Amino acid sequence: MQGIDVPITAIARRAGVGAATLYRHFPTRASLVTEAFAAQMADCVAALDDALADPDPWRGFCSVIEKVCVMQATDRGFTAAFLSQFPDAVDYERDRTRAERGLAQLVQRAKDTGRLRADFHPADLTLLVLANSGVVGESQQVSLAASRRLTAYLLQSFRTAPTEPLPPPAPLGLQHIHQPQPTH
Amino acid sequence: MQGIDVPITAIARRAGVGAATLYRHFPTRASLVTEAFAAQMADCVAALDDALADPDPWRGFCSVIEKVCVMQATDRGFTAAFLSQFPDAVDYERDRTRAERGLAQLVQRAKDTGRLRADFHPADLTLLVLANSGVVGESQQVSLAASRRLTAYLLQSFRTAPTEPLPPPAPLGLQHIHQPQPTH
Repeated sequence: MQGIDVPITAIARRAGVGAATLYRHFPTRASLVTEAFAAQMADCVAALDDALADPDPWRGFCSVIEKVCVMQATDRGFTAAFLSQFPDAVDYERDRTRAERGLAQLVQRAKDTGRLRADFHPADLTLLVLANSGVVGESQQVSLAASRRLTAYLLQSFRTAPTEPLPPPAPLGLQHIHQPQPTH
Repeated sequence: MQGIDVPITAIARRAGVGAATLYRHFPTRASLVTEAFAAQMADCVAALDDALADPDPWRGFCSVIEKVCVMQATDRGFTAAFLSQFPDAVDYERDRTRAERGLAQLVQRAKDTGRLRADFHPADLTLLVLANSGVVGESQQVSLAASRRLTAYLLQSFRTAPTEPLPPPAPLGLQHIHQPQPTH
């Protein structure tokens, strides 16, 4: 078992049970980690599905980022599970491929609306998760505040400027400059 | 000695000497860590002094952030030394107070020019260093690329929009609308 360091106590807290109960259900650390990982992956997949179902692609894009960053700020084992290779989780590759395809789709849709900058790259989502992992670590309250501030700064930078889409162009041509109409 | 984990090999590499030579000069780990910390602090102070001397406060603000993030991406011990409490370094409190005062000055000047957003808080500099520490960790090449991308996104978000200052207002009043001049 490499690269995964989900605290047992965090898993017990998440499950709402004591550590002893937890060990009755999951006698090995491997079974525990697999279960915790599956729960986190399911939360991420649900956030991504919600985002893809949102009729506003930019709002969907923001929502999945905000949800994942909150998960990361409130669950210390999240980053390790999310970013590690995890050979024992049978369906991990399939889930990751599906997530990557969904994220690429979300990014493209958000670009098509003109709200997401054209030079945004899907790799920037990993960059954001890594950056967020750096600001998480103090108390949960401080982690959440830091994560929210960082996420807001980055989302504002990802957004195209000017920040609101313009109304459609007025039906004007150069002739409106060169051939002024008489005024009454 | 808590919270500091500067690799001995990194210090030797920085000093351009072998580990054996290093141990002759610094027989204890404490003396080594103090020296490494002092060198990093001196680099940061120099970057800050350069920024404060820059006649363009926004350029100075960007330069100190970019320099510190490059130091962090190329020296794995940097974040530990920079962000830790270090009780044995006698002058640390004085240096930190001086750095905090200089940074506050730099932030205020950059705001006064209208280039830095008014709701930027000096605590966001710590947020940036922590976020940057999250993206540093792969090879030095990947760390530098990730750090540069993150820094550019954040600096663009810190900058006020519209991104370039406008030329001065034209000398126009409402009378130019209500009392049109005849055209020739």
